[in-house]
Amino acid sequence: MIKMKISDLGEKKLIKRIIANIRSHLKDFNIEGLGDDAALIDMGEEYIVATTDLLRQTSHFPEATTYEQMGWKSVTVNISDLAAMGAKPLGFLVSMGLPAHMRVEEFDELLGGILKACDHYRVPLIGGDTKEADEIILAGAAIGRTLKGEVLWKSGSEEGDLVGVTGQLGLAAAGIKILLSKMGEVPVAEDLLSRIMDHALKPRARLKESLLIAKSHLVNAATDITDGLVSELNELINASPRTIGIRLYEEKLPIPSEVEDIARFLNEDPLELGIYYGEDFELLFTLPPENVTPLRDQLDFHIIGEVTTTGTIEMVDKEGRTYILPVKGYEHLRG
Amino acid sequence: MIKMKISDLGEKKLIKRIIANIRSHLKDFNIEGLGDDAALIDMGEEYIVATTDLLRQTSHFPEATTYEQMGWKSVTVNISDLAAMGAKPLGFLVSMGLPAHMRVEEFDELLGGILKACDHYRVPLIGGDTKEADEIILAGAAIGRTLKGEVLWKSGSEEGDLVGVTGQLGLAAAGIKILLSKMGEVPVAEDLLSRIMDHALKPRARLKESLLIAKSHLVNAATDITDGLVSELNELINASPRTIGIRLYEEKLPIPSEVEDIARFLNEDPLELGIYYGEDFELLFTLPPENVTPLRDQLDFHIIGEVTTTGTIEMVDKEGRTYILPVKGYEHLRG
Repeated sequence: MIKMKISDLGEKKLIKRIIANIRSHLKDFNIEGLGDDAALIDMGEEYIVATTDLLRQTSHFPEATTYEQMGWKSVTVNISDLAAMGAKPLGFLVSMGLPAHMRVEEFDELLGGILKACDHYRVPLIGGDTKEADEIILAGAAIGRTLKGEVLWKSGSEEGDLVGVTGQLGLAAAGIKILLSKMGEVPVAEDLLSRIMDHALKPRARLKESLLIAKSHLVNAATDITDGLVSELNELINASPRTIGIRLYEEKLPIPSEVEDIARFLNEDPLELGIYYGEDFELLFTLPPENVTPLRDQLDFHIIGEVTTTGTIEMVDKEGRTYILPVKGYEHLRG
Repeated sequence: MIKMKISDLGEKKLIKRIIANIRSHLKDFNIEGLGDDAALIDMGEEYIVATTDLLRQTSHFPEATTYEQMGWKSVTVNISDLAAMGAKPLGFLVSMGLPAHMRVEEFDELLGGILKACDHYRVPLIGGDTKEADEIILAGAAIGRTLKGEVLWKSGSEEGDLVGVTGQLGLAAAGIKILLSKMGEVPVAEDLLSRIMDHALKPRARLKESLLIAKSHLVNAATDITDGLVSELNELINASPRTIGIRLYEEKLPIPSEVEDIARFLNEDPLELGIYYGEDFELLFTLPPENVTPLRDQLDFHIIGEVTTTGTIEMVDKEGRTYILPVKGYEHLRG
């Protein structure tokens, strides 16, 4: 008999396996949000919201990443999960694996990046642990709170809703691809390049926008798109109790022309960078058409598609042809 | 100039450096418990209590540890930090680094151990993350709650208090030393050996006892002794706003004779196993002499010494001679 390895399963399937395993374990507890971006603990009028996310140096940080950027990102990935639920952060904790040969000043940079990000999101660093490890490992956990009526679930999309996304797509991916290509001179203006690198190496979670969206009561479902737009659209589809689908319009996707230029230069598909690669810390949400204008008064966002009942993710390309997008993500455990 | 490495500092000093760094960062937040076993977030009538602790296969688990025991222990170390504060667990999260070649059934054992421990402590597993890593890394985080009047601080010891400890000392250390010695046949009865191995590989946090102690209002200070008794006594001394010391009595230490037998057989110092090695998940506390009897009505514990004003940890040996115990711990980052 051939024994299956977890790398044969992949990360998403492994998480599904975990969730299936813990459903019966959880039946005696008041826990909601299983399979959503963060878990919710029922505290009466509000929920305590909690999430954890682990980054390690060799697989999550391009070589050019500074220690400060590593620390910053470990906060951002966790805060983004709170933002995806509409939760206000209460505290951040980080367990660090650190190489024994790491210099004290390097450690101070790493901690400095964590503290700068915590200050940026107005969240206190409340706990930590340090252990020796072969490489830098940053296992963060974030705790937040939200009123019960203001949770941003993955599950609430309705047929006819429009699909919105904050910010632009593919900037982080373009930056990481530039770093990985090691091609040196990329034909991009200095200020744009530095903006792209900032997206790739020092991303900002859309916390303020998330709290605005949660308070507005104008959206039906939301998540973040750090695992890639298509992968997260698929999450919205899977979370819905009814069969829904999503139709995207290529011409509406906010992929900047500069991302397209960089993709061409690096021999990459710009659409791949924009909708599959992930690492853009933007929010994705669905809302009734009549809510678009009221929400636009509070927040910039792009409408990129609509909710259907097909069970699939369709793309209408720039020539008006419709095709079905395969669901694939960038999975760390896929061998 | 010679650059200092973090291994030159050691884990305790590194944590002190972190705490010094984050004091100014925290001044705008309502956070207490910095430097205690877990951090406290002010929620009005109660605190939310949070902690994180990272374990990795090669440095925290003897080779004989099963996957189930690894999972169990990752829960226990975090729950023990909540217990040390008198907090009732609300939820457990775990970020896992997993080798790609790990078999699915091995992963199921690991997750099974986590869930068994969660069931044992009546705490829901509410979140997780999985990433590929070279070895198993389990970064747990536990969230709890406690009423403001029932927090078990490290700082409240008073001169004349007696020093209490739950359970016995050195069992876990004896078990780990047996495993590391690889000497095969150790002259210990089968049932005792299995009890010792259980302490070493599948430790139980003293959660029930902690909640009893917190509700009793009979103790002045408390912590757990997972880093070793002397190291934790030193924490109580450092946390006190006044200069205090601790006097221990060797004959009162609950080090079982079997631990002494095993130590002799392995050429180890039994006192070293009992008061320095750590890994015993017991609670340490100080309380006024008149509170000993009322607390004994609710809980088994041993009185091992008293609180002094010397600023040091003294030991009165079995011949009545007093000497000062050096403060040392088993530190993971010490090179």
